[in-house]
Amino acid sequence: MKSWLLAAALLASAPAGAADPPRAVDLVVRNGTIVTVNAEHRIVEKGALAVDKGRILAVDSAAAIDAHFRGRQTLDAGGGLVVPGLINGHTHAAMVLLRGVADDLKLMEWLQRYIFPAEKKNVTAEFVRAGTRLAALEMIRSGTTTFVDMYYFEDEVAKVAKEAGLRTVAGETLIEFPAPDNKTIAESLAYIEKYLQKWKGDPLVTAALAPHSAYLCSADTLKAARALADKYGAPLLIHVSETSDEQEQIKKRYEGKTPTEVLRDLGFLRKGVVAAHGVWLSPGDRAILKESQVGVVHCPQSNMKLASGTAPVKEMIAEDLRLGLGTDGAASNNDLDMFEETMTAALLAKHASGDPTAVPAPAALALATIGSARALGMEDQLGSLEPGKRADLVVVGLDAARLHPLYDPVSHLVYAAKGSDVRHVVIEGRIVMRDRKVLTLDEAAVLAEADRLRDQIRRSLTTN
Amino acid sequence: MKSWLLAAALLASAPAGAADPPRAVDLVVRNGTIVTVNAEHRIVEKGALAVDKGRILAVDSAAAIDAHFRGRQTLDAGGGLVVPGLINGHTHAAMVLLRGVADDLKLMEWLQRYIFPAEKKNVTAEFVRAGTRLAALEMIRSGTTTFVDMYYFEDEVAKVAKEAGLRTVAGETLIEFPAPDNKTIAESLAYIEKYLQKWKGDPLVTAALAPHSAYLCSADTLKAARALADKYGAPLLIHVSETSDEQEQIKKRYEGKTPTEVLRDLGFLRKGVVAAHGVWLSPGDRAILKESQVGVVHCPQSNMKLASGTAPVKEMIAEDLRLGLGTDGAASNNDLDMFEETMTAALLAKHASGDPTAVPAPAALALATIGSARALGMEDQLGSLEPGKRADLVVVGLDAARLHPLYDPVSHLVYAAKGSDVRHVVIEGRIVMRDRKVLTLDEAAVLAEADRLRDQIRRSLTTN
Repeated sequence: MKSWLLAAALLASAPAGAADPPRAVDLVVRNGTIVTVNAEHRIVEKGALAVDKGRILAVDSAAAIDAHFRGRQTLDAGGGLVVPGLINGHTHAAMVLLRGVADDLKLMEWLQRYIFPAEKKNVTAEFVRAGTRLAALEMIRSGTTTFVDMYYFEDEVAKVAKEAGLRTVAGETLIEFPAPDNKTIAESLAYIEKYLQKWKGDPLVTAALAPHSAYLCSADTLKAARALADKYGAPLLIHVSETSDEQEQIKKRYEGKTPTEVLRDLGFLRKGVVAAHGVWLSPGDRAILKESQVGVVHCPQSNMKLASGTAPVKEMIAEDLRLGLGTDGAASNNDLDMFEETMTAALLAKHASGDPTAVPAPAALALATIGSARALGMEDQLGSLEPGKRADLVVVGLDAARLHPLYDPVSHLVYAAKGSDVRHVVIEGRIVMRDRKVLTLDEAAVLAEADRLRDQIRRSLTTN
Repeated sequence: MKSWLLAAALLASAPAGAADPPRAVDLVVRNGTIVTVNAEHRIVEKGALAVDKGRILAVDSAAAIDAHFRGRQTLDAGGGLVVPGLINGHTHAAMVLLRGVADDLKLMEWLQRYIFPAEKKNVTAEFVRAGTRLAALEMIRSGTTTFVDMYYFEDEVAKVAKEAGLRTVAGETLIEFPAPDNKTIAESLAYIEKYLQKWKGDPLVTAALAPHSAYLCSADTLKAARALADKYGAPLLIHVSETSDEQEQIKKRYEGKTPTEVLRDLGFLRKGVVAAHGVWLSPGDRAILKESQVGVVHCPQSNMKLASGTAPVKEMIAEDLRLGLGTDGAASNNDLDMFEETMTAALLAKHASGDPTAVPAPAALALATIGSARALGMEDQLGSLEPGKRADLVVVGLDAARLHPLYDPVSHLVYAAKGSDVRHVVIEGRIVMRDRKVLTLDEAAVLAEADRLRDQIRRSLTTN
């Protein structure tokens, strides 16, 4: 509500006399239906949006915006839906290079026979650059404006995100075996400290630490990560309770505790921690996460594909956890389409609970936007179209036959729209895709480089 | 296998001497990877396909096809995947006009407060024509070449399918209350008899009867439908075991029997019966359906959205039932994208069984093609790219970032491709969509008409 007061004050300070010249701003987005995803789920038909210095100044009727603002640039939404940019709360972007390498396998077989060997032989800085570029292209084209990443050579991820104009919370992995980039935890921590220093204050890149999980990190590593995160005010990204195997392993290692209890007892949990998956969270775990303001990121398609179990989504929403949505890596999805993920979140919650009213369309759309923003603890900056927030938005065209007729924009966004319906993308006030042309990346070169690496990866797998 | 012998014989009869002129045929599809979905899951890289008189003559390497055939028309697959046209085994096409009217409700509230009133007030021949045209446009654009329909004014559905160049098995509904078209079962049966006579022998339209279900049709109606179907050799489309409520109702009405047992005891079941949903089929039910060669059509997204339960998909595949795939109507989906449905079938089966190896990609693709063909008892005509079969095929472009890199065409088709990747569609040897332009329908007019009806439908609902 505070941001609305801000807008009201701003409008009040510029009374709409015929003689008053409209204020020049960087960008005006016009001719669309604005789906704000604010607390009141406000929808503005024939709406417009004024953007300046990377932030939203006002959201209102086109008439009101026209009366008060003149855009140095304008973006015609073409009668489409203007929606907060989607926030992919958990992914491993560069793994797009491994999509379809191996499917339909048991998790441990999949990891140990295919994914880990493929990563061991192929993951270099070059792989991460090429993979993240491909992922960035796919994400922009399907309406994602922020991605939360956990991988290796994370400085390369940050550089590519910056080059693509994408917002990222990019976490360098800490894991208790030699990683493709850093061979020891000490090396990793040194790398991370430089990395955190380098990106401090960047408007697009939030550098983060990503200790893999309580089962693949020692207690000492988790504590070291916590300390470094505190020193730099950095987010901590971690996998929590993805599989029942993980629950069992942790229980054995830590005297019957759950992963969440282990992390709590290590002093790891607070706002800015993002726990991916949360499939096996108990009611007690959820109370701990809620109390400590930790974010949870639901990854329905990956959980289904790997048969990891049923996340308590209906419960987490009822308990008002900071619950967001992510695709996980493309090796277990196999794409990064957050529209599809949003639909799946709604459908799976209904199926799992036996309740067709569970996770209705507005709740599903909220998961992918303000929900992921809350999971990151960045809800004052991201996740809705409100004055004062970062200007991250996408325009969804309504041309497709499957989007006719239109009764309810939110229903269409969740149940019928696809990533391919996204026409324009704005991030931090900058037009990153216009009329389905990505302006920040050389699309053909990105695809060609991915295909070239494919041949190399394939050879490495057959010479196992 | 027989069809391959046919092709071999045909090729043998035209030895590839340099002087032999290639045989002129209606269409050659070139420059693609052919995903045949035949019994051996054969994939032909750098393949081509010869089509004549609406049927596939040969599937082979481009070099072999070029040596033997010259197309009066050619279709360049542009390096994409050439796949059997998808077969939507269960839908209510015209209900696209009601997509998004009401979501996230309990089935009975949804039906009785929204869908039935909306249908009662709005479903006319005009509604069915406009709705089926919109559905046809959406289906062609997303790679469906055959749809199995259950609705009212079914002669209009058949006419629109014909006009769109789409193949259909179109069943006129029999239901124990006054329908929008026919007010009594006697009227319905009279309508159906004329309808069956009219379309007999049509290459695209298979006219069918669609008694709604054992709970909304009396035993007498089911027997009358069976008799009429026998007289004309027509398929019978019916909902079976969609919800647990249905199970309970039937159990009470028929001395503890299941819907399948009721249908068996009425002599209703044989090849050519298509049972939609099958969520609550018991092992005994499945044995009955298998024995009587009845088709079952799985509708995973609709079942999830309405929280209808978990269909025993892994079991039905293991038992070799005639299992196909469908979207159900768009009011409970909310689109008709069979690519998305295929992905959901794979993901849901893994989730439901706790087994990530359940319904691997080739099995999922088979469900949407040869599986649906088998459900219809039309597997000698449809569902795979083999000599002798109807030439129903789609070309999936590989341009999208999410389809790079490519390791396994079938993995991509199931887990990463979307309807929007379909570039060309051929049905009965005729190019129905080329370069994403539908050649048989006036796209703008179809969308405008749907939007016009939307205003009328919306008014009818608010004046409830």
